[in-house]
Amino acid sequence: MGEREEQVKVLSQWPSPFCMRVLIGLEEKGVRYEYQEENVLACKSELLLQTNPVYKRVPVLIHEGKPICESVIILQYIDEVWPGSNSFMPSNPYDRALGRFWADFMDTKFLENVVQRILKCTGEAQEEGTRYMLECLGLLEGELSAGGGKPYFAGDQFGFLDIVLIPNSPWFYALETLAKWKIPWDGEFPRLQGWMKRCLERESVKKILQDPLKVSEYAIQLRKAFVTSD
Amino acid sequence: MGEREEQVKVLSQWPSPFCMRVLIGLEEKGVRYEYQEENVLACKSELLLQTNPVYKRVPVLIHEGKPICESVIILQYIDEVWPGSNSFMPSNPYDRALGRFWADFMDTKFLENVVQRILKCTGEAQEEGTRYMLECLGLLEGELSAGGGKPYFAGDQFGFLDIVLIPNSPWFYALETLAKWKIPWDGEFPRLQGWMKRCLERESVKKILQDPLKVSEYAIQLRKAFVTSD
Repeated sequence: MGEREEQVKVLSQWPSPFCMRVLIGLEEKGVRYEYQEENVLACKSELLLQTNPVYKRVPVLIHEGKPICESVIILQYIDEVWPGSNSFMPSNPYDRALGRFWADFMDTKFLENVVQRILKCTGEAQEEGTRYMLECLGLLEGELSAGGGKPYFAGDQFGFLDIVLIPNSPWFYALETLAKWKIPWDGEFPRLQGWMKRCLERESVKKILQDPLKVSEYAIQLRKAFVTSD
Repeated sequence: MGEREEQVKVLSQWPSPFCMRVLIGLEEKGVRYEYQEENVLACKSELLLQTNPVYKRVPVLIHEGKPICESVIILQYIDEVWPGSNSFMPSNPYDRALGRFWADFMDTKFLENVVQRILKCTGEAQEEGTRYMLECLGLLEGELSAGGGKPYFAGDQFGFLDIVLIPNSPWFYALETLAKWKIPWDGEFPRLQGWMKRCLERESVKKILQDPLKVSEYAIQLRKAFVTSD
């Protein structure tokens, strides 16, 4: 394994939930990797421009010289290239399809309707973001309640969709701070709250997840680029 | 197989390239299925609302009572549930990652920057759509040219990304018609042109792909809902 492990490099930016996914995936597999911090808003490295010419964004996994882009695609690649006991993709096709569905949902609808609005808007538009967030969380709560309830999204094991979703945890706090608003975890999303606690106890997650306060400060700075009237 | 095959149903709308993908996938596997035509702009069936409550859109594959949504996810599900000699996902993880990358690219950037603009806009905004289309086709031409050129996107075999992309073929004609413009196939995209010819000779594709003229008429009608000044 030694040789192979040295050939893994991740282009990443610390507050990015997409990057945290990839790092958790690698930790789950016990793959050693070289980490390169990027600052995509300030200056993109030559390596980033070369390895992700289409989107020019992080994360990029470079494995044996070949770049793989887009966090959900990278996670599937990691699971396929380093199989074995810590396989995180669900073992049956239907659960894999569900995992891919919700991952895609978060990367399109949640990002567009919730994060973008809360981060970049004010007033009514920002409130719309918080309302849509409650809808999204309701859908996820429903998924965790299916079949009488389950500890992780695909059942008893921490897996793909958990890795995709848990990096939102520090961002939930950041979004609450930006919107001056609180997510009603206890009242409306008890299963999601329990799931989050369980995930946060996992070694790979503990190691990789960023401090919510630090992410929140980053988000406040980021917002200043879009909104000057707060 | 008999019992299982009778449990497959597809909710589809004939001009949708997303639906054509799913049907080609099923044809490739020789799976028999029940077809239900939907008209998502006029009236959505109860079954569609029940099986795709999040997006309420086609295609939906219902297999043994369980719904699977989103065409690219459905295709992967089909390949996993009916494996065997006609496996269309590439056999190595890197090629699978590349296939997923370009599938996702077409479903986000191509749809948003090209189809939406050419279908719904006029003047400069529509022309921007045609310019972006040339960029997208250039990227795909580059992919087909990699390693000295290859007949299909993942190499010698017709596979996943070919199934994802070929339903665009009648829509290319429709987009040309809407934009009153011609794609310079011969001059700029000879490999894509050759690839399209090869795909169109395949039984599954011949059976499922819709007539470009008919798709074009549909697109002209659809445009009238957005643009009244043509």
